Amino acid sequence: MGRVFNFSAGPSVLPEVVLKQAAEEMLDYNGTGMSVMEMSHRSKAYEEIIETAEQDLRDLLNIPDNYKVLFLQGGASQQFAAVPMNLMKNKVADYIITGQWAKKAYEEAKIYGQANAIASSADKTFSYIPDCSDLNISENADYVYICHNNTIYGTAFHELPNTKGKILVADMSSDILSQPVNVSDYGMIYFGVQKNVGPAGVVIAIIREDLITDDVLPGTPTMLKYKTQADAKSLYNTPPAYGIYICGKVFKWVKEMGGLEAMKAHNEKKAAILYNYLDNSKMFRGTVVKKDRSIMNVPFVTDDDELNAKFVKEATAAGFVNLKGHRTVGGMRASIYNAMPIEGVEKLVEFMKKFEEENA
Amino acid sequence: MGRVFNFSAGPSVLPEVVLKQAAEEMLDYNGTGMSVMEMSHRSKAYEEIIETAEQDLRDLLNIPDNYKVLFLQGGASQQFAAVPMNLMKNKVADYIITGQWAKKAYEEAKIYGQANAIASSADKTFSYIPDCSDLNISENADYVYICHNNTIYGTAFHELPNTKGKILVADMSSDILSQPVNVSDYGMIYFGVQKNVGPAGVVIAIIREDLITDDVLPGTPTMLKYKTQADAKSLYNTPPAYGIYICGKVFKWVKEMGGLEAMKAHNEKKAAILYNYLDNSKMFRGTVVKKDRSIMNVPFVTDDDELNAKFVKEATAAGFVNLKGHRTVGGMRASIYNAMPIEGVEKLVEFMKKFEEENA
Repeated sequence: MGRVFNFSAGPSVLPEVVLKQAAEEMLDYNGTGMSVMEMSHRSKAYEEIIETAEQDLRDLLNIPDNYKVLFLQGGASQQFAAVPMNLMKNKVADYIITGQWAKKAYEEAKIYGQANAIASSADKTFSYIPDCSDLNISENADYVYICHNNTIYGTAFHELPNTKGKILVADMSSDILSQPVNVSDYGMIYFGVQKNVGPAGVVIAIIREDLITDDVLPGTPTMLKYKTQADAKSLYNTPPAYGIYICGKVFKWVKEMGGLEAMKAHNEKKAAILYNYLDNSKMFRGTVVKKDRSIMNVPFVTDDDELNAKFVKEATAAGFVNLKGHRTVGGMRASIYNAMPIEGVEKLVEFMKKFEEENA
Repeated sequence: MGRVFNFSAGPSVLPEVVLKQAAEEMLDYNGTGMSVMEMSHRSKAYEEIIETAEQDLRDLLNIPDNYKVLFLQGGASQQFAAVPMNLMKNKVADYIITGQWAKKAYEEAKIYGQANAIASSADKTFSYIPDCSDLNISENADYVYICHNNTIYGTAFHELPNTKGKILVADMSSDILSQPVNVSDYGMIYFGVQKNVGPAGVVIAIIREDLITDDVLPGTPTMLKYKTQADAKSLYNTPPAYGIYICGKVFKWVKEMGGLEAMKAHNEKKAAILYNYLDNSKMFRGTVVKKDRSIMNVPFVTDDDELNAKFVKEATAAGFVNLKGHRTVGGMRASIYNAMPIEGVEKLVEFMKKFEEENA
């Protein structure tokens, strides 16, 4: 069959041009006579790949010189431990609970010190972002932690919490590169790449230099210590080399698309097409408080579970795949990351309109 | 240029047929309309990929039913911490130091308990395997640790240490699938895949069930606990999905090559061609005690550093690449993993003979 429109929450759609290049270079990268998979990570060819990837990411996000970029492994779930192990000097941290992933990060932090849930939207199935303008920040908190975009629930922080001077740490796995970011608002940003950037198995961390020290919790594995990786320029041991190569291609693609302002416009346009339809539909509706809506993940439902199931089944048959919502929310979810073309969203809405007419 | 003969120690050569298939399937895996990189790890298509990979590995190694197979991340270096965190119940372990990687594992274990270096070949630049028939095994050792094949130094255990009843843990990163293994001799085998199996970023661990428990050291990250991954069938979070897919293709290829007995014959034949030449050359010689030679990594030298450099340069120009030895040993090293064809070794030896004649 041809390519489908893939609305998967992650791993998710990648730019077709990136995949085509990767296929073309599979047996011989740039005249080296070998695949990037076969290449020593200490070779000149590979050093150029990883250094170019870092520079392109720095360009895209305007990363200040006093921030390091680390290419890591283990997914966001491993960072849930690495963040407190590296940053919890006073063994106190404040977590804002806006979904399952923030909650998991919070639970893991409790292994290492006093983690405080200073705000939560659990009362309404995480369908909104709590007011974070005047929270009870702990006096000796080492950091305040957020999940910037909540993949499962379809909410996003459109305004950052007032941390009252404390360092902000953000998991941006599901919205990195979807819009500009002011990196200096954060002590640390990290993201698993498998939603907006590349294949699963790479985590990228952007950390302010002064937070990268040897002063980590006792028992921190050498591999989880940010200083190990910062000192070795992410080559302490063999990195997930092929994944980083694909990320680098996606960074080039985002640059060619016009950078993050252009990406934001592209994503807002796609989201508006879908939300506008949802807001006017008599069958489908969004599940999230309007002002907190994500432009990346759009959960929606009908009021009838059987109809939801019928919709997912027929959409799949029509080439709109992975629209089933997360089991904790039910219904549907369309993840419309950077690489989802406008055409994909337009055609999905056409399909939804037709479905609504036929099943009215 | 065409494909080179790639003697890299890792990441290293992969079977060309595997790369060709991966390129062909890059935009549409098996009629799904998407790349494996774009696929939800919870999808049926991906579940089949990871389950088939595990089954093929079980078939190849005859893994007993009471052993779990885990697909992990972070490289062997991360296992250097995970092994003691999971297995050091008495906080004592014995390490046999046969090279840089065994030494790093030993140093990391000291963070977590009493690690004892019960044997070492450091006195002769790790050019041999110590006699391990009657070592001073610690009475309450939780395990005895070895690196089964020493990539840098070109030695291998051809006989296992007498652990006097203690559990044996082995890093087999550089010789897994090169020959049959009696899995039940070990409590745990693990390997980074980037030498003999697939692209960097995947570690596979084979662990006896009774060693996988909740009784881990305090402070063990959830992601580093073997039980987390065993309970979730390696899908606790998003795995390095594309890497596992390539590993699965390599497992199929090894099966098609005739399995591990055939692989062993293939590898011994290649190694013999090279060692026979080295043993008869007046210019080149191997650096390792004969009985301890690896069939995967073959370090060799001339007695002249300038001649070594000239050889590496001319070999590279002739399409024999990555022959420079590790900086701690100098000279040359040919890594001749499973995917290196016999032709590659034959042509290398032809080239060495010609070089020897021309520079006699």
